[in-house]
Amino acid sequence: MSLASYEHGLEKTQANYVPLSPLSFLARAAKISSQKPALVHGERILCWGEVYTRCCQLASALQARGIVRGDTVAVMLPNVPAMYEVHFGVPMLGAVLNTLNTRLDAETIAFMLRHGEARVLLTDREFSPVIKAALRQLDNPDLLVIDVDDELAPAGELLGEIEYEQFLLEGTPDFQWQLPADEWDAISLNYTSGTTGNPKGVVYHHRGAYLNWIANVLSWGMPVHAVYLWTLPMFHCNGWCFPWTMAAVSGLNVCLRRIDPATIFQLIQKHRVTHFCGAPIVHGLLINSAALIPEGFGHPVAALVAGAAPPAAIIEGMERLGVNITHVYGLTDTYGPAAICLKHEEWQALPLAEQARLNGRQGMAYLMEEAMTVCDSTSLEPVPADGKVMG
Amino acid sequence: MSLASYEHGLEKTQANYVPLSPLSFLARAAKISSQKPALVHGERILCWGEVYTRCCQLASALQARGIVRGDTVAVMLPNVPAMYEVHFGVPMLGAVLNTLNTRLDAETIAFMLRHGEARVLLTDREFSPVIKAALRQLDNPDLLVIDVDDELAPAGELLGEIEYEQFLLEGTPDFQWQLPADEWDAISLNYTSGTTGNPKGVVYHHRGAYLNWIANVLSWGMPVHAVYLWTLPMFHCNGWCFPWTMAAVSGLNVCLRRIDPATIFQLIQKHRVTHFCGAPIVHGLLINSAALIPEGFGHPVAALVAGAAPPAAIIEGMERLGVNITHVYGLTDTYGPAAICLKHEEWQALPLAEQARLNGRQGMAYLMEEAMTVCDSTSLEPVPADGKVMG
Repeated sequence: MSLASYEHGLEKTQANYVPLSPLSFLARAAKISSQKPALVHGERILCWGEVYTRCCQLASALQARGIVRGDTVAVMLPNVPAMYEVHFGVPMLGAVLNTLNTRLDAETIAFMLRHGEARVLLTDREFSPVIKAALRQLDNPDLLVIDVDDELAPAGELLGEIEYEQFLLEGTPDFQWQLPADEWDAISLNYTSGTTGNPKGVVYHHRGAYLNWIANVLSWGMPVHAVYLWTLPMFHCNGWCFPWTMAAVSGLNVCLRRIDPATIFQLIQKHRVTHFCGAPIVHGLLINSAALIPEGFGHPVAALVAGAAPPAAIIEGMERLGVNITHVYGLTDTYGPAAICLKHEEWQALPLAEQARLNGRQGMAYLMEEAMTVCDSTSLEPVPADGKVMG
Repeated sequence: MSLASYEHGLEKTQANYVPLSPLSFLARAAKISSQKPALVHGERILCWGEVYTRCCQLASALQARGIVRGDTVAVMLPNVPAMYEVHFGVPMLGAVLNTLNTRLDAETIAFMLRHGEARVLLTDREFSPVIKAALRQLDNPDLLVIDVDDELAPAGELLGEIEYEQFLLEGTPDFQWQLPADEWDAISLNYTSGTTGNPKGVVYHHRGAYLNWIANVLSWGMPVHAVYLWTLPMFHCNGWCFPWTMAAVSGLNVCLRRIDPATIFQLIQKHRVTHFCGAPIVHGLLINSAALIPEGFGHPVAALVAGAAPPAAIIEGMERLGVNITHVYGLTDTYGPAAICLKHEEWQALPLAEQARLNGRQGMAYLMEEAMTVCDSTSLEPVPADGKVMG
């Protein structure tokens, strides 16, 4: 058996090629956890079987409206069930999901809709003034606008030609969706904030989304049926791929329209949330409101904090609440986290200031990343390892 | 942004292509867990940093002897440290590992060495009579034979031209190994037992080995630094990919030359083993020797049992020992487990006979498998789902 023989074997394997795509895991969740809760939003609960059916309907309805592989479907949504479902329903058709940053102004939104050649836009009442102005600038009568009329939304105009739940009814629940022909096919389009000019589009592929949902689970030791609170906007790097992660672990997504400490505390306790992610400001807000829950949560909670290394006050404050935080850092270009602080057991015995310092010197590559170099921001020279944690 | 634009983006991505290979995770373990134990064998302990260095030396020494990409390196070894190291050192060179079933006779071994065109053979004293006879049949003076002179081996002849530890010294610890040029490159060659004729070779690729180590971790919820006892022969489907899994979780591999209940119990207690795998007969042996540990293990242990569904006596007997067993089924062709019993929480309240029945009706596809159909062995008709567990 020479190399040529091995290559003969490999050809055969490639004929049986199955693309890596996170879509596989929604189908699996629907099969093994059909009756288990997938999404909770206010009083509304959707199980994995229902979510799968609704995503099939969404893909089918989009197809019936002429959307095909490679078309862009944009959304201007908070973390509501529809925002979760578009992460599956859109790519089930081979279309590409473009989540818009809900904090941007009309001009930037119009730029993205134009540059991304969006053919469909799903939008929420809360953002009607901005979207209305953006649509006026865009002047594209062919854009299909769909309202997501969320019952927890504040008052606001409906702008679309159809409401999301009605739109789903245009689709068939037994839609024969397909995995992408190629795992390198685009699954989403994410614009950077454009601090140095016009926003730049970052295209995620199915393969990358697949690898990053795994990295999330393994880096964090997430169990099957984890309960995840959506403090991180799904519009931001597709919520660091956690929509796909949560299907893979058949967990419960606790939806959240806005960052409000009292609501967050209540949801964490009510649903026994095990995991959430957020920027340092989210953690700071929770610590400042800690008086609302003098007894803490009563169960262990893990949180990722992204951005600058958390100062001692954040680590200590969150620990007092019973939240074990892990520091990550990432970019739109890396599907979310690119570096993670791998905390050493022996750190727990150190003074808090020293723990914070070691946390701040973190920098192992995220699990599925092959290599990473941390450079000084001015000299661009690699920064030497410290505390044996720099990768 | 049309489909063409997305494809432009993807071309760029493919230029940055990094192949999926389990080798990446040995390098990672060496970086993040350099001083943590990787292998224990009798009194000998090797840490991840050392194992990585030794694998680099092995790859380098093989290269110095003229071994190149696509060459076959065969091994006739029990579960000793060298057997673990060849799973990395051989493919680091792009060579292909052929693990021989140590229970086979000389004629079959000679067939495999000839058919697989082995250029190197690592062998253990215990198998010298069979290997000596096989080499005589083979009559290949170019085959490089290396003895692994394990201190726990029974008496037996040394047959090779060099001993493994000496051979490692021919290699350099800072060998510049490379990931495979293509993730579909062969990583190993496994022969089936040839019940219907000559043994048939199954070629595993780096991509498949990568996906299956992940499936092992996620299907079983294995934590970082898991402690794995090698009751399953590594020659069997590359130990169901667990050599690669254990590097990815930076765990501890507890080596084991032979299935002996007293030794197994002692190792489980001494090293606080968390996981092991085995055929039903292994579990049966342990249950029959349960009198040796009247108190049980004193810590939770998880085990996979492969093959026929475990009868109630096995489930009950293992539970009395404190071992939580999960049933899997697989083939050489599927890198190990292909189907897994996903136990439902509510089963625990059922009578044991009913639990055993539900276990026996298992059949969800293993995590990274796209689809699976369970057929009746005579009619080849798909078997209908039962207990909502058939996938």
